[in-house]
Amino acid sequence: MKRYRNGEIWDFEHEVAVATNRPVILGLDGGTTSTVCICMPIMPFSDALPDPLPVLARAVAGCSNHNSVGETAARETLEQVMADALSKSGSNRSAVRAVCLAVSGVNHPTDQQRILTWLRDIFPTQVKLYVRNDAVAALASGTMGKLHGCVLIAGTGTIAYGFTEDGREARAAGAGPVLGDWGSGYGIAALALTAVIRAHDGRGPHTMLTSTILQTLGLSSADELIGWTYADPSWARIAALVPVVVSCAEAGDEVANKILKEAVQELALSVKAVVQRLGLCGADRKNSFPLVMVGGVLEANQRWDIGREVMDFISKDYPGAHPIRPKSYLLCPDMVLGWGRFRLVEPAVGAALLALNEFMKECVQEAYRR
Amino acid sequence: MKRYRNGEIWDFEHEVAVATNRPVILGLDGGTTSTVCICMPIMPFSDALPDPLPVLARAVAGCSNHNSVGETAARETLEQVMADALSKSGSNRSAVRAVCLAVSGVNHPTDQQRILTWLRDIFPTQVKLYVRNDAVAALASGTMGKLHGCVLIAGTGTIAYGFTEDGREARAAGAGPVLGDWGSGYGIAALALTAVIRAHDGRGPHTMLTSTILQTLGLSSADELIGWTYADPSWARIAALVPVVVSCAEAGDEVANKILKEAVQELALSVKAVVQRLGLCGADRKNSFPLVMVGGVLEANQRWDIGREVMDFISKDYPGAHPIRPKSYLLCPDMVLGWGRFRLVEPAVGAALLALNEFMKECVQEAYRR
Repeated sequence: MKRYRNGEIWDFEHEVAVATNRPVILGLDGGTTSTVCICMPIMPFSDALPDPLPVLARAVAGCSNHNSVGETAARETLEQVMADALSKSGSNRSAVRAVCLAVSGVNHPTDQQRILTWLRDIFPTQVKLYVRNDAVAALASGTMGKLHGCVLIAGTGTIAYGFTEDGREARAAGAGPVLGDWGSGYGIAALALTAVIRAHDGRGPHTMLTSTILQTLGLSSADELIGWTYADPSWARIAALVPVVVSCAEAGDEVANKILKEAVQELALSVKAVVQRLGLCGADRKNSFPLVMVGGVLEANQRWDIGREVMDFISKDYPGAHPIRPKSYLLCPDMVLGWGRFRLVEPAVGAALLALNEFMKECVQEAYRR
Repeated sequence: MKRYRNGEIWDFEHEVAVATNRPVILGLDGGTTSTVCICMPIMPFSDALPDPLPVLARAVAGCSNHNSVGETAARETLEQVMADALSKSGSNRSAVRAVCLAVSGVNHPTDQQRILTWLRDIFPTQVKLYVRNDAVAALASGTMGKLHGCVLIAGTGTIAYGFTEDGREARAAGAGPVLGDWGSGYGIAALALTAVIRAHDGRGPHTMLTSTILQTLGLSSADELIGWTYADPSWARIAALVPVVVSCAEAGDEVANKILKEAVQELALSVKAVVQRLGLCGADRKNSFPLVMVGGVLEANQRWDIGREVMDFISKDYPGAHPIRPKSYLLCPDMVLGWGRFRLVEPAVGAALLALNEFMKECVQEAYRR
């Protein structure tokens, strides 16, 4: 293993006695708001995964989207959170068999290759490494590691990602706030801030968003919003205003309602684009497929339920879409689609299950070749 | 005068023999794309300004919008460009009587105060200092220094700004790309990039913008656009794609045409909001007022003439709006509005004329008090 420049991150490996040599896998979910790393033991082959899953450790850090915070900060966050998870589990890098790094901002094979090269600098050559868009881990989190169906994430950012059973994949959105992710938390909040500016300068109608947002941010006039907006480039900071927009919409504000309705259409459009390109709905548009829906915007669970509205839109065109949402587990615990019971776990666990599946697949292939 | 930390910028004052002690004024136009500083002599009172205006020196630098490049870089650019103009004119700071700094990103009295404090660090107390939004200098550039009427700027950013003859002022837009400046060069180009992404992932119609933009940027697929977009936060870099959008629209591309038509409506809306709030059009909506229109988006002068389309929209509601555009001088050289002949000069000269007007007004007031 090459000597890595951030040596101090791994100091615990020398300082702390390692409790066990049990082989482990790491699953990482790196989003624009936070990054989570899960350490799980390698489990024996089995049709049904144990419930609850045997998570050895869980570590949390900040943003790891290189498009948002830059390459250096993103890498340091990812490396630190992996070290934390291993340290907490009383393990170290020599016990790691596979790592699945699912991060937002992976949009092109060159992104993937760059991260793989850097990751290989941290782990020895025999460790299996997988780098995927964070949406892939989110899908796996609703399908127990199997890549089939579609996932819609709407948190600070938004993306729709889908897989057919024979391995074809497609995505829509996930291009960030400049490139039309209008249904994202950032998109919703930026439109709300814009509505305040437009009401103030006479381009738009009066809205309750003005007083509510200014009060939330502790500002005294709409002019001050401009300085506030550009003082900090963090996308998550803007997206944090989504609950304010939802509460104004619930209180009957027309501008806020229009913003949320357009966001619903945008989010549904992303899913439809993926489903259509992959033919997930079959020729008669009625085939069943799982639709995992995660992220703060979809999980708000308020009276104005964005996730439910999106689902209503999608169901009209694709009645076979089966929603897997945080609360849908409670609503239909026995829903079965022929390949296992649904159970929504967190995306980092989804990434760990992906790593486990891929690792076992490769082990079988290697054993077969021997 | 306090000793200023960037001493080396002013080294020329010791090194070069100053040719003249003639009192001068500085006018600065600091935009998101570039910054221009003009050095002019103090001219005697007169109804008509000389033609051409006696510009002693002109210096050019890069972006000085602190919201785009940050406070430190913006200040260094402004200080350097002032030093360059003085050095070129064979003058130095002791000859300066007034400075008008017209910069984009001045949205609130606190912005103004912060820049004034910093500027006072460079110039001795007897120099008159004026800090205004760059739109005010742009208006003055079309009205020979008099603040009356409305200006529409559409370059990388966009803003509408107006003054009544009795000194009331109003603005619309100018809040940057996050806050709804949709008719700006950045806004137009970002929508074009978005259209490429949406055509690629199935959310939007096919468009000629895809091949044209990818070719212009030397990219091989739409996926690569995401990395390109976030690799550099400069707004001007994105806005530079406007000519590509115009050429696609001229070639009949529907998506590009829709983007430009919406931009026209947005730009016209900004002007209408200002005119309405100030009552520039009078009770019967027919009063005459000058409308200065500047910036790359409005001056493109192509077959698809965004500036002309904006003007057509505005004229429908306000027939008394008299456009002052770079080419309108040629079209109607004798247009008179009762307060002098129109003549469009560059915004930095407008800033210098503003400084001159304000300086002379203050001189008269001081003489009166003595």
